[in-house]
Order: sequence, then structure tokens, then C-alpha cells
Amino acid sequence: MIVVIRPHAPANEIDEVIREVEVLGYAPAPIHGENQTVVAAIGDENSLPTLESLLAFPQVERVMRVQKRYRLSSREAHPAGSIVDVDGVAVGGPKFVLMAGPCSVESEKQLLETAFAVKDSGAVILRGGAYKPRTSPYEFQGLGPEGLRLLAKAKKETGLKIVTEVLSEFDVEKVAEVADILQVGARNCQNFQLLIACAKAKKPVLLKRGMSQRIEEWLLASEYLLANGNPKVLLCERGIRTFETYTRNTLDLAAVAIAKRESHLPVIVDPSQGCGRADLVITLCCGAISVGADGLIIEVHPNPAEALSDGQQQVNFKGFADLVRQIEPYLTAAKRK
Amino acid sequence: MIVVIRPHAPANEIDEVIREVEVLGYAPAPIHGENQTVVAAIGDENSLPTLESLLAFPQVERVMRVQKRYRLSSREAHPAGSIVDVDGVAVGGPKFVLMAGPCSVESEKQLLETAFAVKDSGAVILRGGAYKPRTSPYEFQGLGPEGLRLLAKAKKETGLKIVTEVLSEFDVEKVAEVADILQVGARNCQNFQLLIACAKAKKPVLLKRGMSQRIEEWLLASEYLLANGNPKVLLCERGIRTFETYTRNTLDLAAVAIAKRESHLPVIVDPSQGCGRADLVITLCCGAISVGADGLIIEVHPNPAEALSDGQQQVNFKGFADLVRQIEPYLTAAKRK
Amino acid sequence: MIVVIRPHAPANEIDEVIREVEVLGYAPAPIHGENQTVVAAIGDENSLPTLESLLAFPQVERVMRVQKRYRLSSREAHPAGSIVDVDGVAVGGPKFVLMAGPCSVESEKQLLETAFAVKDSGAVILRGGAYKPRTSPYEFQGLGPEGLRLLAKAKKETGLKIVTEVLSEFDVEKVAEVADILQVGARNCQNFQLLIACAKAKKPVLLKRGMSQRIEEWLLASEYLLANGNPKVLLCERGIRTFETYTRNTLDLAAVAIAKRESHLPVIVDPSQGCGRADLVITLCCGAISVGADGLIIEVHPNPAEALSDGQQQVNFKGFADLVRQIEPYLTAAKRK
Amino acid sequence: MIVVIRPHAPANEIDEVIREVEVLGYAPAPIHGENQTVVAAIGDENSLPTLESLLAFPQVERVMRVQKRYRLSSREAHPAGSIVDVDGVAVGGPKFVLMAGPCSVESEKQLLETAFAVKDSGAVILRGGAYKPRTSPYEFQGLGPEGLRLLAKAKKETGLKIVTEVLSEFDVEKVAEVADILQVGARNCQNFQLLIACAKAKKPVLLKRGMSQRIEEWLLASEYLLANGNPKVLLCERGIRTFETYTRNTLDLAAVAIAKRESHLPVIVDPSQGCGRADLVITLCCGAISVGADGLIIEVHPNPAEALSDGQQQVNFKGFADLVRQIEPYLTAAKRK
Repeated sequence: MIVVIRPHAPANEIDEVIREVEVLGYAPAPIHGENQTVVAAIGDENSLPTLESLLAFPQVERVMRVQKRYRLSSREAHPAGSIVDVDGVAVGGPKFVLMAGPCSVESEKQLLETAFAVKDSGAVILRGGAYKPRTSPYEFQGLGPEGLRLLAKAKKETGLKIVTEVLSEFDVEKVAEVADILQVGARNCQNFQLLIACAKAKKPVLLKRGMSQRIEEWLLASEYLLANGNPKVLLCERGIRTFETYTRNTLDLAAVAIAKRESHLPVIVDPSQGCGRADLVITLCCGAISVGADGLIIEVHPNPAEALSDGQQQVNFKGFADLVRQIEPYLTAAKRK
Repeated sequence: MIVVIRPHAPANEIDEVIREVEVLGYAPAPIHGENQTVVAAIGDENSLPTLESLLAFPQVERVMRVQKRYRLSSREAHPAGSIVDVDGVAVGGPKFVLMAGPCSVESEKQLLETAFAVKDSGAVILRGGAYKPRTSPYEFQGLGPEGLRLLAKAKKETGLKIVTEVLSEFDVEKVAEVADILQVGARNCQNFQLLIACAKAKKPVLLKRGMSQRIEEWLLASEYLLANGNPKVLLCERGIRTFETYTRNTLDLAAVAIAKRESHLPVIVDPSQGCGRADLVITLCCGAISVGADGLIIEVHPNPAEALSDGQQQVNFKGFADLVRQIEPYLTAAKRK
Repeated sequence: MIVVIRPHAPANEIDEVIREVEVLGYAPAPIHGENQTVVAAIGDENSLPTLESLLAFPQVERVMRVQKRYRLSSREAHPAGSIVDVDGVAVGGPKFVLMAGPCSVESEKQLLETAFAVKDSGAVILRGGAYKPRTSPYEFQGLGPEGLRLLAKAKKETGLKIVTEVLSEFDVEKVAEVADILQVGARNCQNFQLLIACAKAKKPVLLKRGMSQRIEEWLLASEYLLANGNPKVLLCERGIRTFETYTRNTLDLAAVAIAKRESHLPVIVDPSQGCGRADLVITLCCGAISVGADGLIIEVHPNPAEALSDGQQQVNFKGFADLVRQIEPYLTAAKRK
Repeated sequence: MIVVIRPHAPANEIDEVIREVEVLGYAPAPIHGENQTVVAAIGDENSLPTLESLLAFPQVERVMRVQKRYRLSSREAHPAGSIVDVDGVAVGGPKFVLMAGPCSVESEKQLLETAFAVKDSGAVILRGGAYKPRTSPYEFQGLGPEGLRLLAKAKKETGLKIVTEVLSEFDVEKVAEVADILQVGARNCQNFQLLIACAKAKKPVLLKRGMSQRIEEWLLASEYLLANGNPKVLLCERGIRTFETYTRNTLDLAAVAIAKRESHLPVIVDPSQGCGRADLVITLCCGAISVGADGLIIEVHPNPAEALSDGQQQVNFKGFADLVRQIEPYLTAAKRK
């Protein structure tokens, strides 16, 4: 770590800091500039205590980390990039992966019709929420266990793999019986206890980026999964919160490029949540492929205008078929599929 | 709700929207302007499905809600403002409430010394984390059950009430045995399952605002507590995430004024987290009191430079005593205490 | 406009609002819901005064606009999309446009070498700052008039068109003598007096989006150019300010898709500024093409490590040649060039 | 500066960086940690070129500045704090300063009535916009020179000092003839040419913080004024842009505390712009005083509902008189006036 001392601090105050650097286990290397001294503290920042606490001294102006905080999820840990096996479907390899399905599981008819439609268009994984985290307690909260039952049925009838969100530590096991991928949503991106519970379930986890989560924090959240024994992690960019009000979120395609560079984990993009508007979804899919995404997760509904949640961002069956056709040339450009 | 139709949409497309408004249970009242038609949809937005799904129609340009989404937590529900009883300590009434203690419970000595020191200076509630949500899995995660045991001991020896964070649904009961206030942290502000579990524990809940949570969403999170039968809710502003890098967070004192206006719930301010720098804490306390806060929660540590978490934002015993002295005139100005 | 009255407001307070709506020139159409009244105000929002001032009445809860605020720059004004002629180079048409060159003009050698190099790789427009807006007064502020002279020379020797930034109303004429495109930078995106001066110069204007400018505000800034008689406007996305710290800015590719949908103006993307890191530039170029950009503006320097400004985001000649080769398949996918 | 080399970089790549550090004028001091080397570069960062350009080397991971970038505006330059003389009114001293008046100058009657009203309540400086920067070209742009004439008249009749915004470099002289304080608005916070022109006019300048301007950038903008020979600078916090939508801006009272600590310049708070809602203004004034503001600038209008700009955030005469009464105890607490 680098400890920046305030300009013109007297020698005894500098010494006080140097001593504390030693107390905390680092080897101090002071560098005296013209106006200001900087103390480089040599030692492993990831096992020693942070020196940020030295800001408690008034003579300390700033403390800067040197090392990256994520290890297991860093690209250095696995330079070739990892491929996650989802019950036979490889995510992160040369084949691009399409996940699609309704925002919420609403009924058997709705789910099965959608499952067959997205399968026909090329999806290999079915999405659908049985447990829905809703901003207001008065909004539709999902069908719960009945939703899981319908997902299991859809899986059996179509052969599609299942990705569905888990909201509660209590439900992890139950959801993992049906799901091939456990989805941890943006609101739970730093619900570390849920992450640990998902890690233990040993199923692949789709980890959505939080609404205002820095890329470093996103990778550190994935580190909770990896450090707890589950290497099967898919990162998912789903839009961040900014000052913009035209769309619900700002899909951060630059973060996809960065996550691919900083980490070896596959990255999936959710353009439906990412912009909250069905009419932008196709264009954003093309962009996602072109910045290096390994797959897409798309909300599809038989009749979006009557969807029980997020109708405005769901495409209908024809919309999804168009989408698959229109992304084709970009997949070719990206040498995917 | 208000459904805005695109300019120059043909009559049959407008009719299509009007019909769907009826299907979804609202009484449509179209208003034809010069270029554009607006359909007012009359009905209770909080029990009927949202019309935002109508954005699935290309002729719909925008959909705007009319009603507020929070009810039980709204000021209208309790115009006089509510007072929350914390085992004999009234929060939200004329008496201003000081909560203080270490970021993390680190040892018996550290906790008890701090407890007696903050009590001497005027605190009535002791804070201290036994379970710590840390951005990295490699950082100190708290003492867990042993931390709870020490909090119970500190309570017994000092008579201070206890506020401590609960991270896991599994721990709610265990924490509620010791805590007088269950704290739900910023990272779990939309962990609705944890909120529901806390509601059921019937203990007062301190609900921290999320890092990028709009005030409406914060009140809707509190609505999860109220709607699940727990009226004892304290809102806590602890800084939001902005583009600013000088401080860790931007303490949003304007939000305190707004929360007091929009809601009847007491509002506590956490300036330690709110700015992440001990040297700004006193000034921000004065500001918090002056915009209407009902209490403060302050991080205090015997030796911040060696704290196991967030040393940079903790004040020492003398710092806390100074703080209590310096806020005095502002409490007088605000007619508190 | 839509004026939302607070729930349970008495009739006389509603009438007061209705009267004021009339005073301000609108025809009021009140709609009485169960709890709340909404007054639709019929009239042209773009010529009548805004009703937002009605929030001065305590019984008014919210005021919402219905009409879009931009007209001349809206897609409706020119559904086919406009093509801007830059002295013979068509921007916005089927041919994709590459602009490239150094961040700052530093010397004759640096500029001419770069100009020839980027021309060889396929650029048709040369960028280079003679006047540099720098965050600190102590940083290199550009060569000024000497920089303009060098740009004129580079134009003469290479035949490339010139895009360069204008910072001062006083300099508009002087810069317009050399530049084929006047660049208005992000910091001046709402310097309306500069925009008006540029409009009057009749040269094409590249209007960079401000660091925290909403898309609506960006289009309204372009509206200042169009309403002042200059239809030759190129929008330029260059990254927005968010909470993310990994990159200097967050390149908002979703905004490119939106600007293309909402406006008829060509959209250029600046990935160099957009991320502030040379190593991400190529990937972001591919993304920009795929979401509908009409051109790119890239910073290129003979030796970035010794650049007088923003070396970290400039690519060298080989880097630029690689870039041009790597974007090729995405241009094919987008049916460009 | 501190140059962080990527882990495990070979010695020759480290040497390449060290040589370039020397080329750019710094004395390199390499520190070899276990995995990673850090090169401390000793030299004056404010006169030597930045080393951020070294990020052009792939083996460089990060570059961190050590020194603060502002000098003349830093607290170190003038530890006691500076007092700005506004034609006999001292700003920044023990006496708290009230500036008030309409958002825009609309008519002689409106301005003079308001001037006398705010003077009666205790204001000493009259605000009022003659030139108005408006997001849309179709909104009221101010009375221009006629507005200046009316301000001069109000000054003559009331004795109040005048603060008014200057938008154009061309107008600086003309505005300076009437104004006692030249206001540079948030949209022009990094219009450095306008700042330089204002510096040369030698009148005090009220520098509003930009909508997404970091505190460092705000102080660097003030540095443009100081470095160009004008020490009479007042900083003005007027709300920043965040994700929050309840208010137009988020008034950043923490930034007031920070600006007072980091800089010697007086700080004024504009709660009217800062929240955009008249009903919050008084509370935010109390907060502003309590975090150390030296004055307030308040929008006051005879009839806000019919104001030509920003009626929703203007208080009427009675509202302003109430405000002055209600802030009294907070001024006492802060030992002001």
C-alpha cells in the first residue's frame, strides 16, 4: 500500500506513521519528495490488514492500494478463460448461448408456449422467475413453488436447461432441484450470505451486477462464490443506475469488455433489464455480441401488454425470432457459434 | 395512470390502447390534444396491474403513474409522525437519540471500554457489528455468535440498548435475542426476504438506505416491514454513491429532509459511513440535526488506526466527547433534547 | 401537461389550480379519480409557459410534461435520417466515417506523421486539438493559433478534412477558417452562447455529449444549433460520468442506439475519451458500429507515452492500423462502408 | 507520482518504464514488493508532465498522483480563510450573508418589489438573471440588456449589491458594469474561457459547482480565476446530479463541509436550485448554515406560480420572511451574524 503523508508534516509525525505500518505487519519504505513524503508499505495486501485505517492520523492524507483485490476470478488465475458446463451446455466457449423466456412464470400455458417458441428460434436455456423481487410489496411476487413445478415441467417437455432466480437462503436447495443455473439478482449482488449458500449448492450461478456496483465489487462478489468452492460462475451485466431517465437502466457494454479482460469468467448480457424497453433490445444484443459477450438472456412473453411484470421490456415470439435472425451477422463477425 | 400516445397515431391504434386499459381494469378517459392523445386511466394503481406493460404497443410513448406507491410508511398515514419505542427509549420524539460504538465488535476489552465511554458522553444505544458484510471475502467478517455474546454482556453491564446488523435470514432469531434494534444494512436494502424475516421478529428495525436507492424505493422497502406487521421502523441515511471520489459516499442530508416530509418514520443519520472520514463527522452531525434527523449513529473505537474495519471513519473517545459537546447548540436550535 | 393534485385536496384548492392553468394559456381538463384529481392541460407545451411553476401551490403534487421538447432534431422531423456534407464527405449515409488524429496538436512533425499514417489506414477526417480545455490551468492548453496553422498545413498536404475544438466565442471565426467541422466539447455542451456562435458559422458542428447530460438535454443542445439556422450537426457520444472508477468515463453505447432512434442526426462515437484507456478502444469500436454509430473519432499519436495530453487513451500507428482491420467484419455485419 | 507495474512483469519491461519516468523529468525510486513493483517518481507533479501517459505501456497497471492539483485555492495557501469584499459587504467573515431575488428579472415592477421585500427581511445582495441559460432554446432566455438596466435601477433605489449571471465572453464587461458579483453558472463551470474573462474583469465571481463536478474539479475551476489574477472568488454549491428523481438535484451539503476544509474560499449555498422545490428550501438553509456555509442565495418571486422560469423553486415574500426568522437559531448555533 502507499501511504501519502500531508505536505510539510514534521519528522516525528512521519515516524509515527512508519511505526504503525510496521505494527500492522508491512515493511515500510519511505520516499521523501520535495514537499511530501510517501510511505510505501511492502507486504501482501490481501492477507494483512488494510492500512486505510491510518487515515485516522491527521497527518495521513491518502492511502492507496496497489494489489488487485480479486484473485480467483481474475484473468491472471485462468488466462485462457473458463468454460462453464451447464448440464451439457458449454457457456464461455466458441458457441454463443441464448437464454430466453418470460420475466415471470405466470401459468402453465404461458410458460410452455414460450418455452417451445424460444427453443424453435434457437434458445438452449429457458429463463423464468418463480420468485420475483419487486420494489413494492404490493406487486406480483411470483408463483413460488408452483412456478418451480412449471419450470420443471417445461424442462422435461422441451429439454431446455433452466435458469431461475433464488431470493432466499431458505429456498436455495429447493430451487437448485429444478434450476440448472441459480440466478442471483442485482438487488442481492452483495447479499453475501445468499452467495455463500449458492456456492454450496454446487450449481452454476448467474451473478447479476448490482445497480451501482463497481466492476471491482462485482468481481469480488463472484470471488465469494469461487472462494466458497463453486467455480461455475457466469457474470451478467444488466444495466446500471445513472442520471439518465430515458431508459430504466443504462446498459453498460463497456463493462462487458472490461469484465472479459479482468476476469476469466463468461459474461452474459441482459438487454431486457438493461434498458427496460423492448424496442431497443435487438440493437443492444448486436452491441453485446460485438464487445465480447458469451451469451444473452432475453425476456420473451406471448403477450407483453398483459404480462404480470415488466411487460414493457419483453418481446413477443415474432420479436424473438427477428432478434435471432438479426444478431446472426454480428455472431459471424465475432466468430461465434 | 397516464398513458401518452405518440403524436399522430391513427384512431384505431388509440382505440387498441383504450381497450387494453379496460382489459387491465381501469376506466379510460382519453384527452385529445392538438398533436397527441393522452389516456387517463382511472383506478387504484396500487391494487390493479401496472399499465407500464402498454409500452409493448409501439404507439404508446410513455406511461406515468399518478399515485404514490407507498402507503403505510407515507406521512399521510400518520401525519403527527411516529415514535418508535426501543425497549424504553423513544426514537422520533422530542428527545434526540445518540447511538454509538465500534464498527465491528473486536474483543471484550474493545467493546466494553467503548460502551462505557460512549455512555459517559451521552449515548443511549450501543452499536457494534457481530456479522460484517465485507466487499471482499478476504476481509474480517466479524466475530459472529461470539460478537453477539459480547454485545449481550455490554448491554448487561452498561444498560445501553443494542443495535447490530443481521445479514442472514437464518440469524434473525439469534440476533433478535440480543439486539434491541435489528439493523438491515445498505447492501441488503432490497433483500426483501430478510426484511420480511425481520418484520416477523417484531423488534425495531433500522433500515439503511441503499447505495443507489431512490427515496421512493427506500420507503417501499420500509413498506415491506410495515406491510408484514412491524410498525417499528427507523430509516437511516448513510450516504449514497455518486461520481464524487473525495469521500467514500455522499451523505445525502437533503434526503433526510425529504424522508421526514414524505414519511412518518423517524430518521437516523450515519455520518461515519456517510462520508467515510472521521474528520468530517462532527460537521455532518450538525448538518443532520439541522435538517430534521431524529438521531445519529456514530462509529467510535478506542484506537481507530488499528481497527479491524473502517478505521478511517471511526472517532476515538475524545473525538466522541467533543462531538457531543459541539452538536449541543444545534440541538438547541432544533428544539431537541 | 398533466398536473397531479394531492389526494383529498378540497374542491376550492383544485379550482385554484384550474384557474391558474387557464391563466397560463392552457385548456384544463380535470379528471377525478377515487382519491386524487389530475388536471390535463391542453395546449402546446413548446410555446406556452411551463406549468411546473404550479408546484408553487402546496396542493399540487407533481407536474408532468406530455410533449417532447426537441422538434427540429427529432426523428419525426426527418424520418429518413439526415446526411451531413463535410466538404464532400457524407456523414450519416451508408459509408462509415473514420476520424482520427492526436488528442493535441503538438508539433508539425507529430501532426503530419500522424495525418499521413491515419490516412493510409483509411481515415478521411483528421482530428487534433489546437485549443485544449484542461481541468487544471497548469496543464498544457494547446498551441492555439499555431496549432490551427499546422492543421491547415496537414489538410493541404493530405487532403484530409479537419475537425478541431473551439473553446471561445471569440475564436469561432478563426477556427472555422481552418476546420471543416467545429467540435464543441463535453464541457461546453450547455454553453449555449458558443453553440449559437457555431450555428452562425455555418460549418458542420460535432456536438459532444456532456459528462452528465441526459439524452433529452443533448438533443436540446443540438436544437440550439438547428434553431439558429445550422442543420449540419453531428452528435458525438464520448462517455458519461458514473460511479465506476475502473475507467475515466463510461462509454454509453445504449445512448447511441437511443439517439439514432430519437433523432435524425448522425451519431459519432469517441471511444478514446469514452473509456480513457487505449487497450479497450478496439473492442468499443466494434460495439459502437453494432449499435448504429455512423462514424468513429479515434485518438492516435506517434508515441503515446510522451503525449502532452491524454497519452493513456491514444493508440499508436500500428494500433490504429490494427483497429481498422479488426472493425471490418462488424462494418460488414452492419452493412456499412 | 506512483507508477504501479503489473505483477510478474519482466525486468526489462520495468526498466523501460523507469527510463521513461526519467525522460519525463522525474527521479525514479523503484520499490520491489513480492509480486509487484511500484515506481515512485519524485518531482513536482504540478510543473512536470503527468505520468498518466505511461499507461500506454501494457506493463503499467495504474498511475496515481500524489500531490494535490490545486494550490492557490487550497486551504494551505491561506489557512485563516479568505474574506471577499463585495463593494463593502464582507463575505466569508463572521457575518453571514443573505443573497435573494428572482430567478429571472421579468419586469421593473417584479424586480423592484422583490428587491425592497428581500431587503426588508435582511438580504444585502440582490440576485436576478438578465441572461438565462435554458436547457431548451424555446424557453425564456432573459431580458438581456434591459434586465441589466433594471438591476442597476434596483441597486440605486435599494442600495443592495447585485449578483447576476454572465453567459457570454462578449458580455463580461457589460455585465460587470452593473454587477457587484459576476455569477458563473453550473453549465459554464468548465467554460474556462469565460472564467478567464471574468478573472480579468476584477469583480468578485460566484462560481457555481457543475452538475457532476467533483470537488477537485470545482477547486481547479476556481484556480483558473485565481491563477488569472482574481482572488475574489466565492464557491457556490447548488446541487449535483444523481440517480434520485424526487428532486431536480441533490443538494450536496457534505461538499460544503469539504470545500471549507480543502479551500480558503467562502462557500455560498443555493438551496433553491439545489433541490428545485420551494417547500424544502428553509430546511436546507438550516442545514447549510450548520455545515459551515458563509451565505445563502435564495430565489424569491412575488408570485411564483406565474414566474417565467423555475417557479416551483421560488418562495414568495412571506416565505422569505419566514425563512429569515427560522434560520436565526442556526446562525446563533454556528456563531454567525
